[in-house]
Amino acid sequence: MRYELYYWPGIPGRGEFVRLALEDAGADYVDIAYDAQAGLERVNQGLDFEHNPRAPFAPPYLRAGDIEVSHVANILQFLGPRLGLAPADEAGRLWCHGLQLTLTDFVAEIHDTHHPLGPGLYYEQQKAEAKRRSAVFIEERLPKFLDYFEQVLAHNPHSGDWLVGDACSTADLSLFHVVAGLRYALPKAMAQHEPAVPRVAGLAQAVAARPGIAAYLDSARRMAFNENGIFRHYPELDAAH
Amino acid sequence: MRYELYYWPGIPGRGEFVRLALEDAGADYVDIAYDAQAGLERVNQGLDFEHNPRAPFAPPYLRAGDIEVSHVANILQFLGPRLGLAPADEAGRLWCHGLQLTLTDFVAEIHDTHHPLGPGLYYEQQKAEAKRRSAVFIEERLPKFLDYFEQVLAHNPHSGDWLVGDACSTADLSLFHVVAGLRYALPKAMAQHEPAVPRVAGLAQAVAARPGIAAYLDSARRMAFNENGIFRHYPELDAAH
Repeated sequence: MRYELYYWPGIPGRGEFVRLALEDAGADYVDIAYDAQAGLERVNQGLDFEHNPRAPFAPPYLRAGDIEVSHVANILQFLGPRLGLAPADEAGRLWCHGLQLTLTDFVAEIHDTHHPLGPGLYYEQQKAEAKRRSAVFIEERLPKFLDYFEQVLAHNPHSGDWLVGDACSTADLSLFHVVAGLRYALPKAMAQHEPAVPRVAGLAQAVAARPGIAAYLDSARRMAFNENGIFRHYPELDAAH
Repeated sequence: MRYELYYWPGIPGRGEFVRLALEDAGADYVDIAYDAQAGLERVNQGLDFEHNPRAPFAPPYLRAGDIEVSHVANILQFLGPRLGLAPADEAGRLWCHGLQLTLTDFVAEIHDTHHPLGPGLYYEQQKAEAKRRSAVFIEERLPKFLDYFEQVLAHNPHSGDWLVGDACSTADLSLFHVVAGLRYALPKAMAQHEPAVPRVAGLAQAVAARPGIAAYLDSARRMAFNENGIFRHYPELDAAH
């Protein structure tokens, strides 16, 4: 099966969570964003009801033969069993998808640190509000989410290394990327809190060392974080020291 | 199968999306929130890793025998086929789940109109920011989301009445509740925009007329919207006229 990933060219963004699963598994896939101009047109065509009666609200979306799937969590739930990145039992898959949806909420809050007034305004139009929101995020929300995943790891009876069962899942790959993004965006805040979540840090290290991921991170396909994506490094939003 | 729904007592909140599916289908379920004091304790116990090694990040969560599912979209995806509220084919179920996740994003943005600086501060601590965010939401985001669902209905080849296939799904029930909540929270903004989305308004009316839903809405089990939930009526945040 050849998968087609549709996402905005030029940013890792939410598409990156899907790329990591495809890369980890060595899946056969086409990343529509690699050709920036043609990619943009094709992504937009799929969002147009005149061309696609089941047009998604936004990318990323994935095509697999006749099937189209939108939203990161939905795509990863679809890919997980096909790529060997999901638990075998129903209860485990539901737990894994729940964790993915918690990561979705975490990512939305990370995005909102620089866009507290919503996606309709530029960062420059909401800098003061972003500073207030980031302070609360660093004080309360970042620790709450990271501590939660630390607890999940600590209480997994099958493994202290992975979130679900005894093997790496799509949720682990996504948590790795969130940690990488936070280290880029809020390095001081992360330096302060990471010692409290050693299992999360260990998971990020273990994911980075997986053969498919290590090769991907080392390739030109891995885009750098930048200030058009979810994880943006605005020093004025980071912890004070 | 007897289902157990765990959610905060006293607010419809995100639990309401799950209740609507259970009520529509006449499912056998226990709503832990009905006993406010004991309910709160039981919800919190399920969130405590000492009692539950797979503790969800937040309610609602659902128990069905040995299975536990958290997050509204995950719960509805789980319940849909069991309650006759999901399409039979895989592509249809994935499309339905994608729509549910778009509704999840919409609900998060609705919540953020009164909490733009995040859940860590009270409304009173972010009133000025809420006013700015609400103005952008009413101008851009509310129309964008509602118009999207109008398009989904217009381009469904199997029906102009339902979002997916030719029958009511969990996503339809959820869209009904979002419309009801918006009419409560932002009546002026909705009065302005609803004429542009007649199919969405028709869907809301059709859901309200379904026997299970009509009986539920008429019962004491349906909680009124209030200013502790997602959909809050703060007149100062509504459209100017």
